[in-house]
Amino acid sequence: MSTSHHHPHNHSHNHPHDYDTVHEHADWHTHDHDAQHPHVHGGVNDYMKAVAEYRKTFASKQDVLEQTPDPAVREMMLRMEQLGHDTVFDRFDQQKPQCSFGLGGVCCKICNMGPCKITPKSPRGVCGADADLIVARNLLRSAAAGVAQHGAHAREILLSLKFIAEGKLNLPLLGEKKMRAVCKAFGIETRGQSARRLAGKLADVLLADLSRALPDDYETIKALAPAERQKVWQDLDILPISAYNEVFDAYHRTGVGTDGDWQSIMKQFLRCGLAFCFTGVVASNIGTDAMFGTGHRATSKVNIGALKKGYVNIAVHGHLPTLVSEIVRIGHTKEFLGLAKKNGAKGIQFYGICCSCLAAMYRYEGVIPLSNAVGAELVLGTGALDLWVADVQDVFPSIMDVAKCFKTTVVTTSDSARLPGAEHYAYDHHHANIGDTEKLARKIVTRAIESFAARRDIPVFIPAYEVTADVGFTAENIAEQFPGYHALARALETGTIRGIVNMVGCSNPRVVYEKATVDVAEELLKNNILIFTNGCASFPLLKLGFCSKAGAAKAGKSLQEFLTAHDLPPVWHMGECIDNTRASTVFGGIAAASGEAIKDMPYAFASPEWSNEKGLDASLAFRLFGIDSYHCVEPPVQGSANVERFLKHDTKATLGAVMNVNTDPKKLAAQIVADIEAQRQKLGWN
Amino acid sequence: MSTSHHHPHNHSHNHPHDYDTVHEHADWHTHDHDAQHPHVHGGVNDYMKAVAEYRKTFASKQDVLEQTPDPAVREMMLRMEQLGHDTVFDRFDQQKPQCSFGLGGVCCKICNMGPCKITPKSPRGVCGADADLIVARNLLRSAAAGVAQHGAHAREILLSLKFIAEGKLNLPLLGEKKMRAVCKAFGIETRGQSARRLAGKLADVLLADLSRALPDDYETIKALAPAERQKVWQDLDILPISAYNEVFDAYHRTGVGTDGDWQSIMKQFLRCGLAFCFTGVVASNIGTDAMFGTGHRATSKVNIGALKKGYVNIAVHGHLPTLVSEIVRIGHTKEFLGLAKKNGAKGIQFYGICCSCLAAMYRYEGVIPLSNAVGAELVLGTGALDLWVADVQDVFPSIMDVAKCFKTTVVTTSDSARLPGAEHYAYDHHHANIGDTEKLARKIVTRAIESFAARRDIPVFIPAYEVTADVGFTAENIAEQFPGYHALARALETGTIRGIVNMVGCSNPRVVYEKATVDVAEELLKNNILIFTNGCASFPLLKLGFCSKAGAAKAGKSLQEFLTAHDLPPVWHMGECIDNTRASTVFGGIAAASGEAIKDMPYAFASPEWSNEKGLDASLAFRLFGIDSYHCVEPPVQGSANVERFLKHDTKATLGAVMNVNTDPKKLAAQIVADIEAQRQKLGWN
Repeated sequence: MSTSHHHPHNHSHNHPHDYDTVHEHADWHTHDHDAQHPHVHGGVNDYMKAVAEYRKTFASKQDVLEQTPDPAVREMMLRMEQLGHDTVFDRFDQQKPQCSFGLGGVCCKICNMGPCKITPKSPRGVCGADADLIVARNLLRSAAAGVAQHGAHAREILLSLKFIAEGKLNLPLLGEKKMRAVCKAFGIETRGQSARRLAGKLADVLLADLSRALPDDYETIKALAPAERQKVWQDLDILPISAYNEVFDAYHRTGVGTDGDWQSIMKQFLRCGLAFCFTGVVASNIGTDAMFGTGHRATSKVNIGALKKGYVNIAVHGHLPTLVSEIVRIGHTKEFLGLAKKNGAKGIQFYGICCSCLAAMYRYEGVIPLSNAVGAELVLGTGALDLWVADVQDVFPSIMDVAKCFKTTVVTTSDSARLPGAEHYAYDHHHANIGDTEKLARKIVTRAIESFAARRDIPVFIPAYEVTADVGFTAENIAEQFPGYHALARALETGTIRGIVNMVGCSNPRVVYEKATVDVAEELLKNNILIFTNGCASFPLLKLGFCSKAGAAKAGKSLQEFLTAHDLPPVWHMGECIDNTRASTVFGGIAAASGEAIKDMPYAFASPEWSNEKGLDASLAFRLFGIDSYHCVEPPVQGSANVERFLKHDTKATLGAVMNVNTDPKKLAAQIVADIEAQRQKLGWN
Repeated sequence: MSTSHHHPHNHSHNHPHDYDTVHEHADWHTHDHDAQHPHVHGGVNDYMKAVAEYRKTFASKQDVLEQTPDPAVREMMLRMEQLGHDTVFDRFDQQKPQCSFGLGGVCCKICNMGPCKITPKSPRGVCGADADLIVARNLLRSAAAGVAQHGAHAREILLSLKFIAEGKLNLPLLGEKKMRAVCKAFGIETRGQSARRLAGKLADVLLADLSRALPDDYETIKALAPAERQKVWQDLDILPISAYNEVFDAYHRTGVGTDGDWQSIMKQFLRCGLAFCFTGVVASNIGTDAMFGTGHRATSKVNIGALKKGYVNIAVHGHLPTLVSEIVRIGHTKEFLGLAKKNGAKGIQFYGICCSCLAAMYRYEGVIPLSNAVGAELVLGTGALDLWVADVQDVFPSIMDVAKCFKTTVVTTSDSARLPGAEHYAYDHHHANIGDTEKLARKIVTRAIESFAARRDIPVFIPAYEVTADVGFTAENIAEQFPGYHALARALETGTIRGIVNMVGCSNPRVVYEKATVDVAEELLKNNILIFTNGCASFPLLKLGFCSKAGAAKAGKSLQEFLTAHDLPPVWHMGECIDNTRASTVFGGIAAASGEAIKDMPYAFASPEWSNEKGLDASLAFRLFGIDSYHCVEPPVQGSANVERFLKHDTKATLGAVMNVNTDPKKLAAQIVADIEAQRQKLGWN
């Protein structure tokens, strides 16, 4: 009867008609019996084993208590335990054992015929998607969400720039000099143009790259990317049309029954990486610098020991600078200082969590960095904060439970980010009230003072850990100091500095909190590798002395001498996550001074503890420039040998860079050192 | 020691430090022991029970074999079984038991700290997200992906319109009359303007609604939505800025640590529904009608019995009309007919799967509808097809296995949708080769003829089921026939027609294939309720005689008389999924003729078997208009009582409509009938 005897069906589809056999093997669907299951075989077996091995490396709360490098974190964790408060670390333990299918990337919830998961008994999803396709689709969706996240950040910045140009938002353009330089790179005529007019023109170009629907050039790439890279991306056919469009395309093609080819999906993954880089990061940075200036080198107090009793204490948490800058300005006026004092306070003090703080600390006076997102609950647990201003990204909803207990008033300021129980003084969805920026800021600082007055009976617990750190490194002030990039190029060529690593990334309880970052940093410095940092990963480096000049003692001999000679710390703090732009500008500047392509330089990117969707894109963006990335956290790709190989191997030939993962920070650091030395060897630099 | 004794911690966080207790309860993580688990309690218990009950209703392949209404489907399923080919139905059984966390919506894979799932032992994700937030975020992400999917469809149409206007694409504008009418609604001056110039202007407006980044009016809503609805949406603050922007915002706000408020997330869900409706559906429809005309009433052969032996048989599968229209045109030229005959064929015949076909069948001659997406493997299994042109959406990757066996050449035509093993003759990512449309079409038809010649030894198995159907209902030709909407309004008011239901939606193996749709349709017709249909759900109605005039016998007495008097079938086939626009136009027209708001009319929307992400949006779009939606498939919200209540109850007060789910099609139909009768009662229509 077979009509297709010429096609032997020896690919055994294995679908017995007594469907009960499926149920007999139901233990396949348990998450922790993988190792013992008798039916595992082939590729699927490999991922189950790999995931089981990986999961064994996950940290526990106890591990964090014993090994986290910042004693203030440990004290606050114990404090929270005493008070009966769950934190990220408790919840991570409660979630164990995590789902194998999810960890391996082979769980598909894309359409409502599922959920499906790949196992030896079910090697295809209902639609026929195999492990490669499911893993690739999930990965692209995460990366596309990351583009939307940083891209929405960019949009907010560009809207502010545009509103300033239109006179709807009353903020100065403190970075006019840089803005004019960027305009020139874009071919925008600057002579005889006012700063506001230029801000409008620049915003228009950057907004076009954010949003165009018609195929056209991505102006930011054309204007700012090295020619060598543009050719690589053109040849790979991964040039994006706009950030909006590529995110849209990503969710379109990953829908059920559209892109069935994991390689085609990974191409869109790369395309999203470029949109992330040039709109999410570069455009955000350009706009922020235009409005608030590039900032300047500064010394800042750091860590919760710097929390001041008796002051109206306001924390800013999130990523958007427009309203925060106004809140800080208003909080520093005589009027509000007077109001604070009238209410019994010694003054008004600002603190920062996450990137809002890192963007502010070297631009305005005295915004003291306290913690990244994972430690936010611990900071609130001091009871020292009267008001907490939250906007977008890395604001865990769990902060509300702690805030409620300590009567800390939480204010949300973005239409895209509300928290049940928080007060909402925000821009609306259409920014119709952008002209109310000062009014919103006055309301928020007023609420802080009222909250201070209402919180006098709240006991405060502040572990006495406080350091100072040097911050505010920019491409501009580095180039000014030396001057140019030739001195750094010479130091690299001669081996005084063996290499440079950009260390960034959010945190992840899978690894001991802040330890992976610190371990890697220590090892790199010992090996005379200079470190740039920004964003969440910079907090442990700030708090533990890596960003102070005294920290140069952590460096190997030649690097230490170089740093001492130039009066510099061993880790150069460049700001918030979008300030990766600064690191890549310096990377590009030094490479040009050496006459080498970036991909051939002894550079690396490390986000040892990453967890955000945008964290996937951040490392991808550096790999797109030809810079290898290093991590202690696996992406969810172990379920597909092909996708894993693509990330960790195949892109060496195309981009000149791969993703490297080792859950052991010391081993990861050793690999970075070895790879940097190998790069030096190839360059003939010894 | 407690600093906050005034805040009793009786909300018991339950995190014992012997973390092994988590492992003791590891059977919580099995997917099929829910019912017996001793620790379930509270809200979590409810969802586990609900999900377990729901899963019991899932169909098996055996159920489909016994109960699916189309005998051709049954014969082909048996045929595939003989040949040892898996189909959707085998794979669905292999995926059993499906994950409870996924089905309940409480599995969160958004950040890489997870995966997390909500259970009594782990009531919060690592970030602190609770069940409400996780379920809401997952739901919004699905809806946003649906906007991207239909929105990408819209973009392709609008690019074609724009390219025609610019002279880059050589296609006529067959729907000039409708285009001019739409332009007038948008306030575009039409006098003295050429069709091409108007096409460009219209494309610009619709592309702006697709892509703007700056807050501004959504022109399509302003121009086309009823004033009553615009006020409702304005009051709810759910007016979108652009489709791109709302999708971006959705993935932004659902990222880790942004929107922590499930109600705020659901507001964005509604906003996405409007973007889906007015760009994904309405703009696609406007552009398609402008280029290809609104079509005309036609009679079409339907089902695989219409497959012709000895012809070059070409199937089109997907959603994008531009290249398909050219392929069909080229295939009908003397040149290619001659080439086909030279190669021993009797001619060239086109068939259609899914919406490409439904858009084509009443616009070009003789594109014969065969099946929706779930049945595509079965159609390929006939061995009768020489070439299969696949573009985007509902093209399951599983078709490649069957195509390979039967040497059917598969061609992919979109840069966003490739299939391993398929030949790729496509527009590139930037549409730089849009001018090659005819060339691509010639290549594809040539490959079909070559494939025919190479496949002469492939045996063919064609079950002899073939019917004719009346298709091509449009708002325009309905209004022309009666004329106007007053006759239909009177028929509704007097009760000759009790109500109208728009029946659409893809398929889902959770329910018996095509049976839910047919059962609901039979019941509605018996109760004198008229049916409109389009898209995947229309296939069983086409194949089983509901769309033929003879089908009027299925209707109750008064409806039957009305249909016979007007020489009409009981189900009016309106085309492809974007032709929901036609149904809603007629709904609006009749409501206006009755002087009632749409939400008060005896209307309903039913997608009994839905499964796609965009299927979520389609029903939402009708609810946004105040029309209740009815389904036999649950959305993944059982894990959150709040989100489920929002969908199924709360929106009655705001939108005037809710989602109704009953897994039993007969009971669902009875509910529709009862609800329609209740609407009539309120209107005083008896």
